Amino acid sequence: MVEKRKPIKVVEAMKRIMAFSKHGRIEYVPLEDSYGHFLGQDLIADHDVPFFDRSPYDGFAIRAEDTVNANRNNPVSFEVIGEIGAGSVFNEPVGKNQAVRIMTGAQIPESCNAVVMLELANEYTKDGKPYFDLKRKSKVGENISFTGEDTKKGTVLATKGTYINPGIVALLATFGYKNVPVSSKPKIGIIATGSELLEVDQPLEPGKIRNSNAYMVQAQVKRAGGEPIYFGQFSDDFETCFYQVKEALEKVDFLITTGGVSVGDYDYLPDIYEKLGANVLFNKIAMRPGSVTTVAELDGKILFGLSGNPSACYVGFELFTRPTIREYLFVEKSFLKKEIAILGKDFTKANPFDRFVRGYLGYENGRLVASPIGLDKSNVVSSLGHADILIQLPGGTRGYEKGMEVSVILLEDQEGTTLDGFVESDINTRRSMRHV
Amino acid sequence: MVEKRKPIKVVEAMKRIMAFSKHGRIEYVPLEDSYGHFLGQDLIADHDVPFFDRSPYDGFAIRAEDTVNANRNNPVSFEVIGEIGAGSVFNEPVGKNQAVRIMTGAQIPESCNAVVMLELANEYTKDGKPYFDLKRKSKVGENISFTGEDTKKGTVLATKGTYINPGIVALLATFGYKNVPVSSKPKIGIIATGSELLEVDQPLEPGKIRNSNAYMVQAQVKRAGGEPIYFGQFSDDFETCFYQVKEALEKVDFLITTGGVSVGDYDYLPDIYEKLGANVLFNKIAMRPGSVTTVAELDGKILFGLSGNPSACYVGFELFTRPTIREYLFVEKSFLKKEIAILGKDFTKANPFDRFVRGYLGYENGRLVASPIGLDKSNVVSSLGHADILIQLPGGTRGYEKGMEVSVILLEDQEGTTLDGFVESDINTRRSMRHV
Repeated sequence: MVEKRKPIKVVEAMKRIMAFSKHGRIEYVPLEDSYGHFLGQDLIADHDVPFFDRSPYDGFAIRAEDTVNANRNNPVSFEVIGEIGAGSVFNEPVGKNQAVRIMTGAQIPESCNAVVMLELANEYTKDGKPYFDLKRKSKVGENISFTGEDTKKGTVLATKGTYINPGIVALLATFGYKNVPVSSKPKIGIIATGSELLEVDQPLEPGKIRNSNAYMVQAQVKRAGGEPIYFGQFSDDFETCFYQVKEALEKVDFLITTGGVSVGDYDYLPDIYEKLGANVLFNKIAMRPGSVTTVAELDGKILFGLSGNPSACYVGFELFTRPTIREYLFVEKSFLKKEIAILGKDFTKANPFDRFVRGYLGYENGRLVASPIGLDKSNVVSSLGHADILIQLPGGTRGYEKGMEVSVILLEDQEGTTLDGFVESDINTRRSMRHV
Repeated sequence: MVEKRKPIKVVEAMKRIMAFSKHGRIEYVPLEDSYGHFLGQDLIADHDVPFFDRSPYDGFAIRAEDTVNANRNNPVSFEVIGEIGAGSVFNEPVGKNQAVRIMTGAQIPESCNAVVMLELANEYTKDGKPYFDLKRKSKVGENISFTGEDTKKGTVLATKGTYINPGIVALLATFGYKNVPVSSKPKIGIIATGSELLEVDQPLEPGKIRNSNAYMVQAQVKRAGGEPIYFGQFSDDFETCFYQVKEALEKVDFLITTGGVSVGDYDYLPDIYEKLGANVLFNKIAMRPGSVTTVAELDGKILFGLSGNPSACYVGFELFTRPTIREYLFVEKSFLKKEIAILGKDFTKANPFDRFVRGYLGYENGRLVASPIGLDKSNVVSSLGHADILIQLPGGTRGYEKGMEVSVILLEDQEGTTLDGFVESDINTRRSMRHV
C-alpha cells in the first residue's frame, strides 16, 4: 500500500526550511586567504579616503593667489623649488611665485592650495634653475583631491555576508584588515543511499551504477560556501543506517542524504526520521524533478533528504540547501538570482507541476537566451557539465515554445536575491503585477 | 627628458603576449578535490550509458508478444513472479503471461522486451498471488532505455581545459575517475613596488597609502586559476630590486610586478628589464586605464609590468595576465567572454583611447544593463567590490549616453572565448560586420 503524500508549493517548502535557518560564527583568516570567503562583519573604512589632500595628476603645486593676473598675454613665472614623489612629503614653505613638482597621488604641501597640470606648464631653465610659465588663473582647490572626499572614516563599504571577490580584497587591504573576519563555513554532512550504487573505483556490474550524487553534492556544497563532510554510502541494514545518520548528525551543522526518500521497501529515510523523532517539514513538493524531496528538522539541525535521481538531487540542493548555507554565512540575499530569458529551444512536455530544467545561458545581442539541457537523449550526459542555470517552467497544460519568456535561476551567481526577491522576480509574478 | 613610447592596440598587445603562452603539466587530484580545477585531459565515457537495458519507469517487465490480443474489451492477465529493485538483477526465466515488478533504473530481465507503466496495470490478488490486467498492446522495446542510447563508450564528454563544476564532477564520478587528471596551476609571482606603499598592518602616515594591489592581484590570480606567490614589496635600491626580480623569476612560471612602469625616477622596471636582457613586447597600450602596462619576456617566462594605479592594475591583469593563466591550464577559450549590454548611466568623458571601466551587470526584462562604477567620487571606493564586468568604451570624440549599446567583458564567467571571439564579439566589429 502506497503512502499518500500531500505536495506543497516550492516557495512554501522554502519558507518552512527558512524558519529553521541559523547563522554561523565569526572566524579570522589572513587577508591573503580571504578570497572566496564571506564577510563575517561589515567592512568599515578605518580612515578617510584620501587620507590627506593629494594631487590627482602629475603637475605643480602652487598658491592660487599667485595666478590672479595670469592670462594668455601675461604669463606668470614660477620657480620650481622641489619635487614630491609618491609617498614623500614636502615640509618646507612655498612662497610667492614658487612651485613644487608633484606626482600623482602625492600630498599637497601645506602652503599650496592648487595644482597646475603638467600639460599647462611651459617649463624652462634659467641660470640652471627650473621654472615654468602659466597662462591661466588657478582657483583655490583646483586639481586637489581633498581629505575624505571619496570616503569618510567609519563608512560601511560592504556589509556582513558579502562574498569576498578581488575588489573586496583590495578594500580590505586599503583599510588595514591584516586578518579578516569571515563567516565560519557550515559543515554539511553527506550520506549516499541506494543498493544500486557502486563506489567510483569499483568496476561496473549489471544492474548497478556508480555513485555520482555524493561527489556532485560535495562540489555543490563548496560552490555554495559550505564545507562538505562525506560519510560514505549507507548500509543496507536499517538499524545500522539509523545509527549512521544519528552519529553523522552530531558532527555536522546540516545533513544531506541522497536517495531513500521515495515510498518503497528500499527507502529507509521516512522511518529513520520517525525513529529519530525528527520534525518532517514536508515530504512532497509540487515540482519536477525532485517531488519526493523531504526535509526534516531535529534539535535545530536541518536534514535534507534529496532524491537519488541525479537531476532531482542537483535541483533540490540548489533550491533548498544552498539558501540555508548562505544564511549560515550571514548572506542576506541567500537565494539564487532569478532573471528573465528567452527560451532557446522548444520544451514541449506539459507538466501539471513547476518544472526546473537544467540549462545553459547564452546571449543574443544583449538578451539572455536559455537553452534546456538533455532534451535529446544523446546529450543528456555530455551536456550536464554545461549547466549554469535552472529554467523554471510553471506547471500548466501546454508546453513551451522557443522565443517565449521564461524565468531562469543563475547557478554561478554570487550576488543572489532574498526569498521575497525570488518570488517577485518570477515571470508569473511580474506578469500579474503588470496587470495590477 | 621623458622617453617617448609608442602605444599599440589592445588586441595587438594580446597577440604579442599569446605568442609566448605555454601549457602546464598534468597532475592527479582525488575526485573530491577536483571541483574548481581544470581538466588536464579529455573526459571520456568508460562505459555505455545506460550500461544495460533498463527501465526508465516503475512498472512491470513483460514479453510484448503476450499482449497482442489485449484491448479495452479484452484485458490480458499477467502473473507477477518477482521483483527487481534498483541494483539487483532478475536471472530467472519469465514465461508466457508472466511479469516482473521493476523499479526505475533496474535492469530488464533477459526474457522480457517491454515495460508496462505502473499506472496502466490493474493489480489484484488471486489465490494469494499477485496479478495485473492489461488493456492495451505493448510494442517490443516499449519503455526500455537501451544500452548505450544516451552515451557510447569512448565518447568525449568534456574536453581538456574544461572548468570542473559540479556537473563535471558528476560525470567524472559516473565514469570512474577516482583520481582526476587536472592541469597544474601556474605559479604566478607577485612583487609590489612603490615608495608610497605601507604594509597592510602599518599605521597610516602622511603621503602614504596601504598596499592593496598585491592582495587584490593575489585574489585575481586565484580566480583565474593560478597559484599566487607573493614576494613582498620591492626594495628602494635598484641593485637589490634587480636581484629580487631575478631570484623571483627562477621560482615562478610568470611574474607580475605592480607599479614602477611609468617614466619617472622611481620607476625601475624599464631598467630592470634592460639589465635582465628581457625582450620588451610593448611598454604602452592605447587604452585607459593602464596605458603604461608593460610586458616583457625572458627565457619563455612572461613578466607582466602592471600599473601601480589600482584600476589600471586590475584591468591590466584581466586583459593580459588572465588569458595567459588560462592557456597554461589548457583552456581553449582563454579570454573573458564579451557580450553586448545597454549602458545604465551616462559616461560623458570622451577619450581618444579605448577605455575599460569597471562596472556591474544588471538585468532588465532579460536585457543586460551595464553600470559603470566610480562615476560619483563618493562611490569610487565602496563600489569596487561590486564590479563584475569591464565596460569597453571605444575611443572617440564623444562620451556615451545611457541606453547606448556597449561591449561588456564578464569577469566572473568561466566559459570564456578565444582571442578571435574576443575581437569578433566587440560591438564595433559586430556593427561593421552588419554593414558588410
